[in-house]
Amino acid sequence: MTESPTSPGVRTEADLADPAYRQGLVALLGVLAYGELVGFLTIAQEAGFAPSSRDKATLAHVATQEFGHYERLAARIGDLGADVHQAMAPFTRAVDDWHRRATPTDWLEALMKVYAGNSIANDFYREVSDLVDPQTRELMREALEDSSQVEFAAGELRRAIASDKKVAGRLALWGRRLIGEALSQAQRVAADNDDLMGLLVDTGSGYGLDLGGWMHMFTRLTDAHTARMEALGLSA
Amino acid sequence: MTESPTSPGVRTEADLADPAYRQGLVALLGVLAYGELVGFLTIAQEAGFAPSSRDKATLAHVATQEFGHYERLAARIGDLGADVHQAMAPFTRAVDDWHRRATPTDWLEALMKVYAGNSIANDFYREVSDLVDPQTRELMREALEDSSQVEFAAGELRRAIASDKKVAGRLALWGRRLIGEALSQAQRVAADNDDLMGLLVDTGSGYGLDLGGWMHMFTRLTDAHTARMEALGLSA
Repeated sequence: MTESPTSPGVRTEADLADPAYRQGLVALLGVLAYGELVGFLTIAQEAGFAPSSRDKATLAHVATQEFGHYERLAARIGDLGADVHQAMAPFTRAVDDWHRRATPTDWLEALMKVYAGNSIANDFYREVSDLVDPQTRELMREALEDSSQVEFAAGELRRAIASDKKVAGRLALWGRRLIGEALSQAQRVAADNDDLMGLLVDTGSGYGLDLGGWMHMFTRLTDAHTARMEALGLSA
Repeated sequence: MTESPTSPGVRTEADLADPAYRQGLVALLGVLAYGELVGFLTIAQEAGFAPSSRDKATLAHVATQEFGHYERLAARIGDLGADVHQAMAPFTRAVDDWHRRATPTDWLEALMKVYAGNSIANDFYREVSDLVDPQTRELMREALEDSSQVEFAAGELRRAIASDKKVAGRLALWGRRLIGEALSQAQRVAADNDDLMGLLVDTGSGYGLDLGGWMHMFTRLTDAHTARMEALGLSA
């Protein structure tokens, strides 16, 4: 680790000529794309718990938005001259494992996964979008504009908690487990992938976060999650 | 049952002024919409069996097409002054039951469900679209244009059968079960719903199939299914 600036340099389109940056970018877009693809599949699965056709349709709509993100990320990977499936391959196991460990057993757990999971994913997109070139940044920020699913889930969870105080403890526990697993998995995935780590963390390139900044980002993600749980009246 | 013409009368936009026709149409669009919505959810679920991210993405794309059909059917129900969720309500149990009984246990069974299930649904759309007004007919025929999923599934199944003859018997049995359940369920659903039966079968309106025509339609659906299974080298 060489000495790093306290604030990361801002990447431009010109950086796309740097093979190391392109490789890191393809890795980043690969893990995000696989996250969206599996996010699509699992939200659609979780819609099976929906108590009404109205709720099923709402979650189905959320799922199709995730697939739209997947398609745009896949197109960007293609534009960079890489194959989306090869780009996703290094990450499929970790993402699948997370979803397997975070499989909801009922409708409220499914809603919590949408609420807490999509929110923290959005926060991660926002943080990391500062570290990429402007065109990729725009693509990542577009994905943030669809927040209707998070609001829908929050509304349903608030109603459920208000009408039955007993669910609060169970949902607090579930939210903690979901996010604890997600954050430790994310750190491990990044640490294991040199291309991705090279993009996100400054190891001499003058771009990316220094190691302290990288740890601080996870602290911010955790704090924002805690605030969101408290907004539902749950202890995080 | 009054005497019926051998060929059904052709409905026009003017028929939309007839309350009985509108009720029947809302019922028909309701059952189709719920079929598409749950079709979306189950295809997305079945994509969980997909062996690769490429297959997952293909099935996810198929699923989003089904959701597109749902949205267009829902919009048409809204245009007719009805609520899509109320329109779907009489049919949710039968459709859910069918999917529960027709839950694949692996990737090849999931593909067979797409191949045989979507094909017979398409045939049904085509048959029934002759019995509705032109605008609804166009909407129903649009849904038929997406046949890529059936071709994808057929290709995968052919490859699997060619490389392991043992799967043929199992898939033949599964296909028979899927479609037997679907056809008997469809007949029961229609018979139990006066609005739908009034639209599809001529009980004095001068429109719809006579009872013989109704039975013949199911024979045609079954024959086409048999031909499709034989096209894969399976006995139906």
